[in-house]
Amino acid sequence: MITKSPHFLLLLLLLSLAASLLCSPSYGRSTPRPHRSSSADASLVYLWPLPKLFRHGDLALSVDPEISLDLQVPGGESATVSEAFERYKDLVFTQWERSARRSSDEYDIAKLTVVVASADDTLQLGVDESYTLYVGGGEGLSVVNGATVEANTIYGAVRGIETFSQLCIPNFENKSVEIRKAPWYIEDEPRFNFRGLLIDTSRHYLPVNVIKQVIDAMSYAKLNVLHWHIIDEESFPLEVPSYPKLWEGSYSKLERYTIEDAYEVVEYAKKRGIHIMAETDVPGHAESWGTGYPDLWPSDNCTEPLDVSKNFTFEVISGILSDMRKIFPFELFHLGGDEVNTDCWSTTPHVKQWLEEQNMTANGAYQYFVLRAQKIAASLGWTPVNWEETFNTFKENLNPQTVVHNWLGPGVCPKAVAKGFRCIVSNQGVWYLDHLDIPWEDFYNSEPLEGINNTTQQKLVLGGEVCMWGETADTSDVQQTIWPRAAAAAERLWSPLETTSAGKLNTTVLPRLHYFRCLLNHRGIAAAPVTNRYARQPPYGPGSCFVQ
Amino acid sequence: MITKSPHFLLLLLLLSLAASLLCSPSYGRSTPRPHRSSSADASLVYLWPLPKLFRHGDLALSVDPEISLDLQVPGGESATVSEAFERYKDLVFTQWERSARRSSDEYDIAKLTVVVASADDTLQLGVDESYTLYVGGGEGLSVVNGATVEANTIYGAVRGIETFSQLCIPNFENKSVEIRKAPWYIEDEPRFNFRGLLIDTSRHYLPVNVIKQVIDAMSYAKLNVLHWHIIDEESFPLEVPSYPKLWEGSYSKLERYTIEDAYEVVEYAKKRGIHIMAETDVPGHAESWGTGYPDLWPSDNCTEPLDVSKNFTFEVISGILSDMRKIFPFELFHLGGDEVNTDCWSTTPHVKQWLEEQNMTANGAYQYFVLRAQKIAASLGWTPVNWEETFNTFKENLNPQTVVHNWLGPGVCPKAVAKGFRCIVSNQGVWYLDHLDIPWEDFYNSEPLEGINNTTQQKLVLGGEVCMWGETADTSDVQQTIWPRAAAAAERLWSPLETTSAGKLNTTVLPRLHYFRCLLNHRGIAAAPVTNRYARQPPYGPGSCFVQ
Repeated sequence: MITKSPHFLLLLLLLSLAASLLCSPSYGRSTPRPHRSSSADASLVYLWPLPKLFRHGDLALSVDPEISLDLQVPGGESATVSEAFERYKDLVFTQWERSARRSSDEYDIAKLTVVVASADDTLQLGVDESYTLYVGGGEGLSVVNGATVEANTIYGAVRGIETFSQLCIPNFENKSVEIRKAPWYIEDEPRFNFRGLLIDTSRHYLPVNVIKQVIDAMSYAKLNVLHWHIIDEESFPLEVPSYPKLWEGSYSKLERYTIEDAYEVVEYAKKRGIHIMAETDVPGHAESWGTGYPDLWPSDNCTEPLDVSKNFTFEVISGILSDMRKIFPFELFHLGGDEVNTDCWSTTPHVKQWLEEQNMTANGAYQYFVLRAQKIAASLGWTPVNWEETFNTFKENLNPQTVVHNWLGPGVCPKAVAKGFRCIVSNQGVWYLDHLDIPWEDFYNSEPLEGINNTTQQKLVLGGEVCMWGETADTSDVQQTIWPRAAAAAERLWSPLETTSAGKLNTTVLPRLHYFRCLLNHRGIAAAPVTNRYARQPPYGPGSCFVQ
Repeated sequence: MITKSPHFLLLLLLLSLAASLLCSPSYGRSTPRPHRSSSADASLVYLWPLPKLFRHGDLALSVDPEISLDLQVPGGESATVSEAFERYKDLVFTQWERSARRSSDEYDIAKLTVVVASADDTLQLGVDESYTLYVGGGEGLSVVNGATVEANTIYGAVRGIETFSQLCIPNFENKSVEIRKAPWYIEDEPRFNFRGLLIDTSRHYLPVNVIKQVIDAMSYAKLNVLHWHIIDEESFPLEVPSYPKLWEGSYSKLERYTIEDAYEVVEYAKKRGIHIMAETDVPGHAESWGTGYPDLWPSDNCTEPLDVSKNFTFEVISGILSDMRKIFPFELFHLGGDEVNTDCWSTTPHVKQWLEEQNMTANGAYQYFVLRAQKIAASLGWTPVNWEETFNTFKENLNPQTVVHNWLGPGVCPKAVAKGFRCIVSNQGVWYLDHLDIPWEDFYNSEPLEGINNTTQQKLVLGGEVCMWGETADTSDVQQTIWPRAAAAAERLWSPLETTSAGKLNTTVLPRLHYFRCLLNHRGIAAAPVTNRYARQPPYGPGSCFVQ
């Protein structure tokens, strides 16, 4: 816990002492039995990710199931905030609690005041997500009366309401929802502006409803970038009006996204303060494009990478990006550029001849292709993101605006930021969710600034991203492969370094992660047991959610 | 396909011929590629479970995204029907389709007429679930104009609307929803009145939201009984007001159901035409009761079965059942009675002494216990259901109203119905979902009337139930362990024997089951790949939902 005021600290110390004598733990059973949950550690704060700064007391305050929103924002309204408030009300309270409520003056907290400095709903990278949350109480202990979220932006307010919702705990004894350890004072903001999760809808199509479930869960963990790897060599599910045959590369006529679907995903995410970073991976990982337009293949027998020799290839890329630009407002756009095997270029006669005419090696053609695609993206006002092979292969010619996306291993971001590039960390050894043998501890301990000591260079690390590649992840198992491990990375990316590097994994982090996993389950998200040897394995036997 | 009218058949034959020349398949791609879906077999009808009788043509009719409901029911209103209609509208149409609709006269089907003979919403075993569905068309082919569901009860109407929803297929080319192969005439009713699924909230607590998701998916497969195995030896999550310490046997203070939660589950299920059959398993499988009331244990060291020698034991059972009776209106109540090991009775001094005083063997005490519990249930107006051990051990003394619940293997129901008992089939070798090695084909081929040739005796088989025991099934994996295999049993229990015993599993059943699994995924249910070697395994690699 980080504290500011020595007087407040003293008060808390006294309250804690009283609590340890008087209060029962938040959950747990009096008689230990086999397979049962051990009591929660009452000294811990069950918030995930842990806020930057918090102070609390030891009072339990009841919350009105029909708690009202007092929204104070320039212009008086923000659908984003009021809808978020209603969503969380549905998550926190059951129907029967809401229908059996008493009058509002019988609850300690009957109103949540949300004060937002600006109603501007622009969601750009680095948008201010900070907020302050006060939960007061009676008996002379209140910081302020009632509960209040203060934020500079509506997205900060949304984050604050999520935190408020996590403070609301059901009490099954008196059938109410209460906030324990009140009063609360929380000051919070993310450590990194880019806290991402990749989904892959080419290896397996994920229905829009499922993508929305992923976005919901991201918002609970305060992740803020959904990297949508829409297309790959296996299938091309997205509609592209400029080239309407492209989605003939979908797995089936029912496994497709219309542009309206994509727009709906963007809007849904925006309401939760989440950017959609779309990807069009070129020139490799694009075989499915040729189902509709076989001219994009070097030949019918040699189908990857895209044919670098034809102008048509770049016309199609330009068409795709122009169509996507209308859908995806986020300023970062991912151009892939990974795992390019240029053999088809060297062996297909007309491409080989073109290389000779251009006096270009196959590797030079790879650079030519990536840079030409970057120019198309830049001309549309996008900042290009590329996988690290582009940096590793021709860093000296890469557009200096390029955001380098690490994946092959550690140590690339230090090199990239030393050259002045911005960087996103996704080291596959610790942050690839499809690597089922990576335990939550490795996700948690992965430090994005490892090896970067210069503060100017540190600022070039935008953040990190965990990657859910879809080879063996479809609707049936994507959630439990993502969660709870993605949450471990989410705390690393949100909470202060002092919090996440304290090294007390089993005593202070694991119980909170168990708790957050159970919270996800309670909210209908199929998060897997925390301590399984491999990700998404079933529980090993009967037992409490809080210890499995 | 079962047909009635030879003239209609001839018309269909001609239409089919035309269709085979003119129409493309419902989904699929023109160019076969690795990992891609093969074209759907256009001759198949993609409904699950398959209706009793259906006839269709080959027209595609567009459906208004804001299709209206014309509900004709005595009294003019039925919230159950109108809410079902709205739910399915949300499942069938996307937000963007609904906001981009044209005027209603531009759609072939802008209204669903639902005619229900009675507004009585009593949901008893054997409630009439039959319905007739007409989907008409223009050009002189219409059976009737528009789309109409006719039913005797509101629950028949709910089943009919489900079938209507399955006829509505998105067309991504023209961005509309359409009903293909119209006009349609469907007459449908279930083969068995009891089509059950067991969930076990003792081995793992399932949040109410998750139970609701299970109920949703059951309604899609037309299952109609959720057997809620609430309590077992591992945990006692349910509130019992008469004995308020019982739920101290829950895993934690947050893994509990209030009576209001249970009531909400019952109401939620009823709106979908689904009964909740609650279970209180005695005298075994009840160790968790003693956490709150240790007197229920023979001794602190020998804690199962419940102490048969104390009147207190039966007072507690009476209290539990009286409290449950207020919550669970279904006329069947499950009293368990399985796997009773009486060693603790024979070895605990005070129980041993009591047995001697009563001149009773331990086995006799087992019978005494079950019959006394049955009397309590019967006195509350419940029909007792017991696991088959009770029948196997003392059939001659069992209450003749008892419904025998098979599980140990095949052959028990033939014996039970020969003795005049009613029976439910759950043969663990083919219908236990926690047996991960049982493939969908075994679920599908399991015939509840196997070995029963006498029609009077056949009528005593209420139906069947697939069982999702919770040892390794929690929120993270319960859905994909249940689905799609439970759907295979659902068709066996709903559709005519001639349909399900036709033996063309790979040609006519498998493609439809693939399709239904993808429908579940589309609706947000994490149904697993159909053809995995073991249940709930991830997909083996990239590919279409329709072939994995």
